[in-house]
Amino acid sequence: MTQVETRTEAETQLLDAVLATVKSTPNDRLREVMTSLVHHLHDFASEVQLTQAEWLMGINFLTAVGKFSTDERNEFILLSDVLGLSSLVETVGFGGTDEATANTVLGPFWQPDSPHRAAGASIVDTPDPGAPVLKVSGVVKDLDGRPVANASVDVWMAARNGLYWQQDPKQARTNLRGVFHTDAEGRYSFETVRPVSYPVPTDGPVGPLMDAMNRSPMRATHIHFIVKAPGYQTVTTHLFDSECPYLETDAVFSVRESLILTFGKEDGYYTANFDITLMPAK
Amino acid sequence: MTQVETRTEAETQLLDAVLATVKSTPNDRLREVMTSLVHHLHDFASEVQLTQAEWLMGINFLTAVGKFSTDERNEFILLSDVLGLSSLVETVGFGGTDEATANTVLGPFWQPDSPHRAAGASIVDTPDPGAPVLKVSGVVKDLDGRPVANASVDVWMAARNGLYWQQDPKQARTNLRGVFHTDAEGRYSFETVRPVSYPVPTDGPVGPLMDAMNRSPMRATHIHFIVKAPGYQTVTTHLFDSECPYLETDAVFSVRESLILTFGKEDGYYTANFDITLMPAK
Repeated sequence: MTQVETRTEAETQLLDAVLATVKSTPNDRLREVMTSLVHHLHDFASEVQLTQAEWLMGINFLTAVGKFSTDERNEFILLSDVLGLSSLVETVGFGGTDEATANTVLGPFWQPDSPHRAAGASIVDTPDPGAPVLKVSGVVKDLDGRPVANASVDVWMAARNGLYWQQDPKQARTNLRGVFHTDAEGRYSFETVRPVSYPVPTDGPVGPLMDAMNRSPMRATHIHFIVKAPGYQTVTTHLFDSECPYLETDAVFSVRESLILTFGKEDGYYTANFDITLMPAK
Repeated sequence: MTQVETRTEAETQLLDAVLATVKSTPNDRLREVMTSLVHHLHDFASEVQLTQAEWLMGINFLTAVGKFSTDERNEFILLSDVLGLSSLVETVGFGGTDEATANTVLGPFWQPDSPHRAAGASIVDTPDPGAPVLKVSGVVKDLDGRPVANASVDVWMAARNGLYWQQDPKQARTNLRGVFHTDAEGRYSFETVRPVSYPVPTDGPVGPLMDAMNRSPMRATHIHFIVKAPGYQTVTTHLFDSECPYLETDAVFSVRESLILTFGKEDGYYTANFDITLMPAK
């Protein structure tokens, strides 16, 4: 735990009094979590010498974040995303090694009912004439490099207008998503349009905070993946486009060096080769 | 800043990436506050190895706290109160010495329009037959013990049913509150009923959290004071009753040893002598 150098005797006594109260929490895990939470909350306020006016701004901000949230869109999740907390929770829970494909945030647009599609099929159900085609393929393997057969590869992405089907009544419900299965050599493949970058929503209270921090709301260009197979830990990940200008400033801190691909160019279409390495189940 | 021992290389990289983003915040103070906030938020999640399920519980809890809040009652302020943050902000901002009367939380029931009353007058505007009478008196002085004349002493308290006038349509708007002024010797005095303890509201999302922590919702028995005089720092404080059983477990961590009084007993009424020592203005 921190020793905050600016802490006065009165501040220390107060923290000790609150921590003493937390000790009576019967549930071991809640006690552990609340002890750390109280410690860091007080460390923060002592460290920055938080003023009453700033405290009230914080109270009003958090209240507005709660009030803005709906069942369809939770502004606290967005706040967690843009502070890197969501990404941290994915990292902490996954406990992966450098060899395994990195686990990243799920985001708000995954849906459990994506259509199962044949190997190599297109996920474009709402035609987008003239959009550059991207053919994605890869191998799902284990930490020893052995192919994993019959793994499910669930993919979803935004359309070229930056919107997911949930945000865009002109798209079919099944547009730009699908579940594929690897063959005996661990291979999967599908066809889509080349993804674009798009901003996180900035019309809620988190928007002005990002503005004040001079932060870009843009997500780095990506396709979402969930890969699962019996005996292996499920990985939620992204494929990123190396030509995207927002890789360094991804609004939700999902980019990992190992997930950035440089697309190939064939006659009339782009290609991306994205291999996925699964960890054994815990 | 903390070195969290459980932090992996991936977690460190993520924290560094978020902190690098915070660096671009143009306002110096916002940058300072957000740097500390992000650091402690990540330290907390790494330290307890926060799981996705716990993260989601936290998101849902904070959302409920925001949604429960109204203009009249802010549940985030209550959450801040019961975690000792409000009390800490009062302590940090005041910067008092041991000799000066301690600054404590304002609470939600202070109102600016309390009636000015003559020295020794009663603040009971809604009669409470049979309630024990308390006569409060004291001297307002400076750090050298010299009396402060014409200081204003603004007091307010709950009725014997544990409710403030704002919560109880049977009480007059002016019941149990008033502003007094010290005489040439710094003396003030007023008459009231002996205060009782009462619980903080537990019908919002903070109630179940306190339950799970085995926390008492009771506030220690008190009378609120704001004392101000030209040339001195205004102090917001409480007078506490030494016979209250909740002094050790005050729900909002306002009790200070120096603010606890043992009431005297005269023929038919109680007495409390509460001297207040003001700091010079900053």
